[in-house]
Amino acid sequence: MNVEIINIGTEILLGNICNTNSTYIAQKLAQLGLNCFYQTSVGDNVDRIKSILEIAFNRADIIITTGGLGPTDDDISIKTIGDFLGLPMHTDNDAEKDLIDYFKRINREMPSSNLKQVLMPQGAKIIKNPTGTAPGMLLETTFNGSKKIILSFPGVPKELYSMWENTAHEYLRQFSDCTIVQKFLNFNDIAEATINEKLRDILESENPTIAPYVGLGEAKLRIAAKAKDIQIAEKMIEKVQKQIEDRLGEYIYAYDDKPLESIIAETLLEKNLTVATAESCTGGLLSSRLTDISGSSNYITANLVTYSNEAKEKFLKVPSEILEKHGAVSEETAFYMANGVKDFADTSIGIGVTGIAGPTGGSEEKPVGLVYIGISSDKETKVFKYQFNPSLSRDQIKFLSTQKALHILRKLITT
Amino acid sequence: MNVEIINIGTEILLGNICNTNSTYIAQKLAQLGLNCFYQTSVGDNVDRIKSILEIAFNRADIIITTGGLGPTDDDISIKTIGDFLGLPMHTDNDAEKDLIDYFKRINREMPSSNLKQVLMPQGAKIIKNPTGTAPGMLLETTFNGSKKIILSFPGVPKELYSMWENTAHEYLRQFSDCTIVQKFLNFNDIAEATINEKLRDILESENPTIAPYVGLGEAKLRIAAKAKDIQIAEKMIEKVQKQIEDRLGEYIYAYDDKPLESIIAETLLEKNLTVATAESCTGGLLSSRLTDISGSSNYITANLVTYSNEAKEKFLKVPSEILEKHGAVSEETAFYMANGVKDFADTSIGIGVTGIAGPTGGSEEKPVGLVYIGISSDKETKVFKYQFNPSLSRDQIKFLSTQKALHILRKLITT
Repeated sequence: MNVEIINIGTEILLGNICNTNSTYIAQKLAQLGLNCFYQTSVGDNVDRIKSILEIAFNRADIIITTGGLGPTDDDISIKTIGDFLGLPMHTDNDAEKDLIDYFKRINREMPSSNLKQVLMPQGAKIIKNPTGTAPGMLLETTFNGSKKIILSFPGVPKELYSMWENTAHEYLRQFSDCTIVQKFLNFNDIAEATINEKLRDILESENPTIAPYVGLGEAKLRIAAKAKDIQIAEKMIEKVQKQIEDRLGEYIYAYDDKPLESIIAETLLEKNLTVATAESCTGGLLSSRLTDISGSSNYITANLVTYSNEAKEKFLKVPSEILEKHGAVSEETAFYMANGVKDFADTSIGIGVTGIAGPTGGSEEKPVGLVYIGISSDKETKVFKYQFNPSLSRDQIKFLSTQKALHILRKLITT
Repeated sequence: MNVEIINIGTEILLGNICNTNSTYIAQKLAQLGLNCFYQTSVGDNVDRIKSILEIAFNRADIIITTGGLGPTDDDISIKTIGDFLGLPMHTDNDAEKDLIDYFKRINREMPSSNLKQVLMPQGAKIIKNPTGTAPGMLLETTFNGSKKIILSFPGVPKELYSMWENTAHEYLRQFSDCTIVQKFLNFNDIAEATINEKLRDILESENPTIAPYVGLGEAKLRIAAKAKDIQIAEKMIEKVQKQIEDRLGEYIYAYDDKPLESIIAETLLEKNLTVATAESCTGGLLSSRLTDISGSSNYITANLVTYSNEAKEKFLKVPSEILEKHGAVSEETAFYMANGVKDFADTSIGIGVTGIAGPTGGSEEKPVGLVYIGISSDKETKVFKYQFNPSLSRDQIKFLSTQKALHILRKLITT
């Protein structure tokens, strides 16, 4: 069974948005072991959509479309698919009910234009959309005597993702005779080039394949094994994983992209610890990431963002001599911030972050990207110094600083 | 003249990389006023590339390919194009010289496999690649009696960009007799469907075209005008923009995606105002967004994240009776949080956010997605209530809450 992806939306043809939906679906199909030979993007135009459908129905068994399911006049995907297949359109009662419920839930009157979103071709089943108004469509049909399947999703990525996970994944699994199992190993404190050097021989393996990925402040490896069934693939992965762990185990902090925030949350809860943060250059991002976990109220009571020197003195008891002599961005200030917020919020651990996120505010002595992170426990207070690349953006330096702070916290509480 | 984009590379079909090259080329074509109706991605496979070329040569005048120009065995784009057009291949002497020079410059011996990169179909001109080994190709040819042009670029984005700027842009300009200018209008407090209803007649305009976009917590319109020169296009946009502003001006808060944070920063600075935030459900994200602007230390001194009731009492002076009677997520608590943080940080404005970000912690009376935002100025304190869709993720509810809070702040300071 071959799958083909069609993206419908003039905004892609004009380059206003990048086609991340195709990337997402392509990844998901690869995981399922389903072949996808073509991806096409076309605008919101009846004749051109029909010409693309004609080509796709002739060369693929399963067609997946995204985009063009909204309430506006230029959203024509489902109607055009129905017309192309010669199927009459009717209102799907379940979908209409979901739509009415949706607007009740968000307490807004439903514009009449939304009703066109629940018009479906005869024989189509709807794919529920838990986060938006546009239901998707699943249609099993025949074309020139062959069985064909078409699935349609909205173009809003988050809506596509949840609908795919809830519905399409299980449905499509039946068409694959092999399976691809993936495992990710997440690394900290090691450069991609070092990973490559230490694993040169293993990286050449063809099944499982081992591919390095780099992101901002993270390195990871994907191990992907293709086999008849999941058990065999898992065994293949286990063997390679063991080899990698033997060489680089000390740098692996998580598996399968388990968020750093979750690892920290579980350990804090298990050890009955609480934490407080005092942030300067990260402006609240560290606090926000720590509270991204549902239930974080069990280990967080109060966090502070202290931008001004006065706030650092008043709430964190950083001595004014320290601020005068060493400046707000200094090892000494980070030390007092960590201690101060631990007292302020009465927690087991305090973290203080101070630095220069840029693009302005740097100097020769203290360039953009210089960040101090203090961490204080009942045993001791330590300060770590980082110099990030000054040409990174403000957002990136903020993010990298929180990433380092979370790793420092993780190491403190897990060892 | 219609243009078509073809991306060649199995890594796109597997979802290993996102197709940013298509986005780049699409933007460049739009700026040139050249129509592009289709984008296709295909793997490194001779038969499938030929079938895509067959389709493209039949429906487009100019075909642009990226990818598959490297030295390895799976890089087959130029050879396949030559075969498809029935053109013999020969070594391009200029390109060969460039290649030898390139390896001299980087002081490395040239692997013999690189020589295939300078094999070109008869009649092709090379497009010089200043940053890599793969030259591009420009070929003017005929297909079924019609004049056709094909341009081929490497898949490495940086190489494509410089080659496009140096060569393709000037070359393609001759085929365009117009230019396209775009303008974005950013809306708040109005649903996409309502915009659509109020502007139904305007949205039908063919030049300029007006297209609605939706994202999480935002709606916007793109006006795109096509004209002989920039001045005329700008005049056309101005006229439509005025019509839209007459009907929906009160909902437009920004032009060309100017960030909400920047609008707020400029107004706070101009009016010499300061702001402090007390966050519960948003966990520091509001503070982080407000400090995303370089120079935000001019209007922020200290922000608080108060997760526990004790912290709300101790630092924000929320009366314990209020917390007991109405709960932490209530209009009353938001009111006291806004007032309290204004006093705590001694600012002109205080914002308090309390709600249930989920997925746990909701009840029938207070479901996930319920959020109260209080805002306090020297004149008065107001509280706004929102009920976001409970099936949104924790991240989404956090983001939407900060988006609302920023809009409330913007409205307070701009009116």
